[in-house]
Amino acid sequence: MAERIGKATLNLKNTPTVLGVGAVVGKKEGEGPLGEYFDEVHTDTTLGKDSWEEAESELMSRAVNTAIGKAGLTSDKIHYIFAGDLLNQCVGSVFALKDLEIPYIGLFGACSTMALSLGLASVFVDSGTAEYAVATTSSHFCSAERQFRFPLDYGGQRTPTSQWTVTGSGAVVLGNKENGPKITKVTFGKPVDLGVKDANNMGAAMAPAAADTISQFFKDTNASPDSYDLILTGDLGEVGSELLTKIIREKGVALGDNYFDCGCLIFDNESQDTGAGGSGCGCSASTLCGYILPRMAKGEYRKILFCATGALMSPTSSQQGNSIPGIAHAIEIMM
Amino acid sequence: MAERIGKATLNLKNTPTVLGVGAVVGKKEGEGPLGEYFDEVHTDTTLGKDSWEEAESELMSRAVNTAIGKAGLTSDKIHYIFAGDLLNQCVGSVFALKDLEIPYIGLFGACSTMALSLGLASVFVDSGTAEYAVATTSSHFCSAERQFRFPLDYGGQRTPTSQWTVTGSGAVVLGNKENGPKITKVTFGKPVDLGVKDANNMGAAMAPAAADTISQFFKDTNASPDSYDLILTGDLGEVGSELLTKIIREKGVALGDNYFDCGCLIFDNESQDTGAGGSGCGCSASTLCGYILPRMAKGEYRKILFCATGALMSPTSSQQGNSIPGIAHAIEIMM
Repeated sequence: MAERIGKATLNLKNTPTVLGVGAVVGKKEGEGPLGEYFDEVHTDTTLGKDSWEEAESELMSRAVNTAIGKAGLTSDKIHYIFAGDLLNQCVGSVFALKDLEIPYIGLFGACSTMALSLGLASVFVDSGTAEYAVATTSSHFCSAERQFRFPLDYGGQRTPTSQWTVTGSGAVVLGNKENGPKITKVTFGKPVDLGVKDANNMGAAMAPAAADTISQFFKDTNASPDSYDLILTGDLGEVGSELLTKIIREKGVALGDNYFDCGCLIFDNESQDTGAGGSGCGCSASTLCGYILPRMAKGEYRKILFCATGALMSPTSSQQGNSIPGIAHAIEIMM
Repeated sequence: MAERIGKATLNLKNTPTVLGVGAVVGKKEGEGPLGEYFDEVHTDTTLGKDSWEEAESELMSRAVNTAIGKAGLTSDKIHYIFAGDLLNQCVGSVFALKDLEIPYIGLFGACSTMALSLGLASVFVDSGTAEYAVATTSSHFCSAERQFRFPLDYGGQRTPTSQWTVTGSGAVVLGNKENGPKITKVTFGKPVDLGVKDANNMGAAMAPAAADTISQFFKDTNASPDSYDLILTGDLGEVGSELLTKIIREKGVALGDNYFDCGCLIFDNESQDTGAGGSGCGCSASTLCGYILPRMAKGEYRKILFCATGALMSPTSSQQGNSIPGIAHAIEIMM
């Protein structure tokens, strides 16, 4: 059962363990710095499906099935699946998972969904509510572009602060086991709105939320950032992560050389022309599940803080002149 | 802590209690059969805001604040708020709740969201993960029509099977207390897809999911439907609820005179011209929070099963020729 420490952090006493992970991505992600770490790289943007939306579902379906397989389980053993994505009414997740016959907890946390789903799955496993639970999310560059921005054929110019939606999905299976990376603490964040309205600068909209959740975590736990092998946000990109280090310093938290952002890891922004970095639910999901968690399992990291960030807006809310509130959820993982 | 009974049902041993409820609706709902039971009825569809989307947020904001007030609490005491709605990227909930400074768990369960949010909040309170938690959702006829169907000004014809999106929101505050309606069991459902593709007949798309979850609940608990004062689905409407009684009979469950659907309670379909009945997340939310839970608190019902149903589709998925998977989550509440 979770013990509350400080104002907003959960200390998970039964420490749910990562039993299996899956990370499935597209061509550009496969050509990036983390390319060799993913379970599958698909060069066909449709994955043989009739639409990019269905392709996104296929990414998630493959990531989830890979994770369940690596955990040595079958889908009938999974008590709950926690899932969400960026598509309107989260149809990416629905069509990915509808045939698995697993009780389905639909989430919307925008690009914070990997941490949101992992946090909820952790609470369920830690409290004994579930024996096995899956956390997953996805995004697809093409389905996101046409829903949030312009038809791809339009060839719109991108601002330097804009980020590149990752085509990818990540999935984690949690359960109780002696060995493996363990979810030890969770801080669910609150919406933070500093009035940023530029939909082409999501990093700036999300950085205040990341600062809020991470500083809350360190306040609650009385820990110091330098006791972590890795502090990982996702996906603030270059602009947002620079902003985060500044804002959070004003809150008394100094992020050092152990701080990275998933949006800056997944692409080589200069050679891959990806603006300020990767974004989309699939960015932090595929980075965490493809690169970070397997390295933890090998003992390369002992203790990390994973903080996925989301921009809680829609094209309608932006067109109506509203600001872009951000949210961030933090997960401590230990080996 | 929750004990699993049968295949998919949680038996909540610490039985989280309803401490406060709020139900805020629009004009048409105020003129319907349940009109006198709501906390607030707004005759202005915009609630004085600049858009229907902002009006929807205002409905939720008022429902949540009413519920917290009736619970004798202030928002800083609430550990988590579980919320979602039908608007793209769930901006209805975000803009309703962003200034409350409460850790925010964003959900998407379409019209099943009241049961989804209530189920998750119950698990959190039951396991001691939260002391107080809020569950809420909303919908607005005008924001839903223009997002899912046609601009209102177009004056499109409606099919007889189509339902009328409720303008309304409901909110529940849960905590531990001796007296009051208690959440005793939760069955989270799985997506069920029988291939229904008619986006003007949501009841038919959701009925199989309701049958699946309710029959699972009775199988897991070994209980009989006639031991309940009320079995309440929401919102299948007239077509869907008739279909449910037929489908579930084939699964060996006979729903009798104690079975009602929120979509059939909230409007007088004949005089109010609301097609097959009410729909939208706000339908089951405002019916449960405005009418049912207060009557339970007065002792009029002793034991109910609340099963909100959702259609997991988007206009894009429908236009691309996909089916409409349904989902339903069931909550047993006892006085």
